[in-house]
Amino acid sequence: MAGAITSRDVARLAGVSQATVSRVLHGSAGIAPETRSRVLAVVEQTGYQPNAAAISMRTRRTGTVGVVVGRVTNPFYPQVLDALGAELEPHGLRLILWDATTGPGERAAIEAIDQRRIDGLVFTTATASSPALQHAIDRRAPIVLVNRVVEGQPCDQVDSANEDTARRIARYFADHGHKRVGMITASADASTAAARSTGFTDEAADLGLHLDERHVLDGGFSHEGGRAALERMLDAGIEPPTAVFAVNDLSGFGALDAARAAGIAVPDDLWVVGYDDTEMASWEAFQLTTARQPIPEMVRIAVELLLARIAAPTRPPVHHRLPSEIVVRHSTAHAPVRA
Amino acid sequence: MAGAITSRDVARLAGVSQATVSRVLHGSAGIAPETRSRVLAVVEQTGYQPNAAAISMRTRRTGTVGVVVGRVTNPFYPQVLDALGAELEPHGLRLILWDATTGPGERAAIEAIDQRRIDGLVFTTATASSPALQHAIDRRAPIVLVNRVVEGQPCDQVDSANEDTARRIARYFADHGHKRVGMITASADASTAAARSTGFTDEAADLGLHLDERHVLDGGFSHEGGRAALERMLDAGIEPPTAVFAVNDLSGFGALDAARAAGIAVPDDLWVVGYDDTEMASWEAFQLTTARQPIPEMVRIAVELLLARIAAPTRPPVHHRLPSEIVVRHSTAHAPVRA
Repeated sequence: MAGAITSRDVARLAGVSQATVSRVLHGSAGIAPETRSRVLAVVEQTGYQPNAAAISMRTRRTGTVGVVVGRVTNPFYPQVLDALGAELEPHGLRLILWDATTGPGERAAIEAIDQRRIDGLVFTTATASSPALQHAIDRRAPIVLVNRVVEGQPCDQVDSANEDTARRIARYFADHGHKRVGMITASADASTAAARSTGFTDEAADLGLHLDERHVLDGGFSHEGGRAALERMLDAGIEPPTAVFAVNDLSGFGALDAARAAGIAVPDDLWVVGYDDTEMASWEAFQLTTARQPIPEMVRIAVELLLARIAAPTRPPVHHRLPSEIVVRHSTAHAPVRA
Repeated sequence: MAGAITSRDVARLAGVSQATVSRVLHGSAGIAPETRSRVLAVVEQTGYQPNAAAISMRTRRTGTVGVVVGRVTNPFYPQVLDALGAELEPHGLRLILWDATTGPGERAAIEAIDQRRIDGLVFTTATASSPALQHAIDRRAPIVLVNRVVEGQPCDQVDSANEDTARRIARYFADHGHKRVGMITASADASTAAARSTGFTDEAADLGLHLDERHVLDGGFSHEGGRAALERMLDAGIEPPTAVFAVNDLSGFGALDAARAAGIAVPDDLWVVGYDDTEMASWEAFQLTTARQPIPEMVRIAVELLLARIAAPTRPPVHHRLPSEIVVRHSTAHAPVRA
């Protein structure tokens, strides 16, 4: 920073060498007591703080953790960031943010790994083909995957029981008499969308629910995508579904908005279920039944794993999978989930 | 990072000193050509990249910009972050994020300034009493205030025409026949809330609108706060307002949700206007008339000012104030704004 005091300034003002300043600040032996008090007095007067770069050179730790997130305008990611900030703070760690969908994204994360700008990486948008994931693993950089996971990769991973929970959502529809169902999915590169789609589709087939391929549409995890998907289901020229599962809340909100615009009554004529339980799902405008991802708990475990990995780089990787519960609201008429 | 190649490794493998490695990589004169090619061959083979800390020691630049935001679960801030990421990327700058409302917040920003972990600070939650603002100014650290500003402070600032636009919102209500109006405000420490409240209140008085003190409530910029504020207006035991101005969109969404829960028809029985024009304001669930803050433009100018400040620390500070337009939607019956 302009005007900041450097160790050179301290050395000049104390009339000693920079090496002496450094030795005083490190508590090295062999410094004359008079010299030591003169240096410390100057440090006190000037408010000198050792440069972060100097600390980092010395300790080989940056005190900074990188996080790669999806588009931050998807409310799921701010909730992850909120939880991550709260978990990192007691450890005195800072957070560098990269948005994987805009700007430099993964490229910046790779550069940060190579230049040792970060002590570790929290990765929330991993896919099997993520360059930053491969790079971190090749370089043996501490990394933890949260939410999206890549089976078989030798790194720590935390997700929730996406496939099982999606199966339970299909059963929930069947239990309450629905016959024609629809699904708003997203890129199968994302383990979350793949597992939720597979679970719902398989269970729907097992239970004899009708899931027409014209009622399975990609909503791109977005509000506009979810809205367009439901509009296309309603315009498909066949009987529309009476219950729709959206693989994340944001596309579920889009589906609710499409229903609202088309004059379709939720829940009387259509049930909608999302996934995540973002804060907005409980707002009066949506009252969306959804699968609650335990975001604070997932993030807490991820930070624990990352710190353990930084401390012990060769520890065998683990994969934590947390349970999800279905939170019932107005979008499914508050109908109970059977055990 | 564990396993990463250091300049010490390069020196050892090339059979030279670390100082020689450094001189080769800086293109210093006086290195024997044979030595130079041996060092470069080792650099090539090992994939060595100079440590960020070493680069930072040398250049006294970190390539990192800090940003202090309000709670990231308020959708205004993700839109700021989104725009900021897009602006910083072409300059090769990284973004360190601090949430002023949870975790270390401003304290971390102060520490980063002192330890020169960042080249500059983008501050979106400044108040007259912000410790980080005072600290940055005292230390002559490059800082730019965006959205919230503090009059009279010697630093670059960017905001929009909050007071004028709030005046126009009061006129808009009067032009369409409203007599009893309400306001959902927020902490007057925030320049945004203060200017919007003042503009609306003054113009309402000038126009003879009735703004009962029981219809002026603090919504804390939050959804739950906006919802509780409208509930209290409806329960105040006096005739409720027919038009309410919320000083940000999020508290406006809360007001719309309170109306929905109470069976108050918007816009027939109640108009609601927000401020910001976040993406969600245009969603079918809300269709909120609101003042559009030109977020991408505000952020673009802020980054320009910050880069200019880093390059020329003593340049006189400037204050950019951008216009806001009122975007008309269903929550005010699409009634036009008069010129």
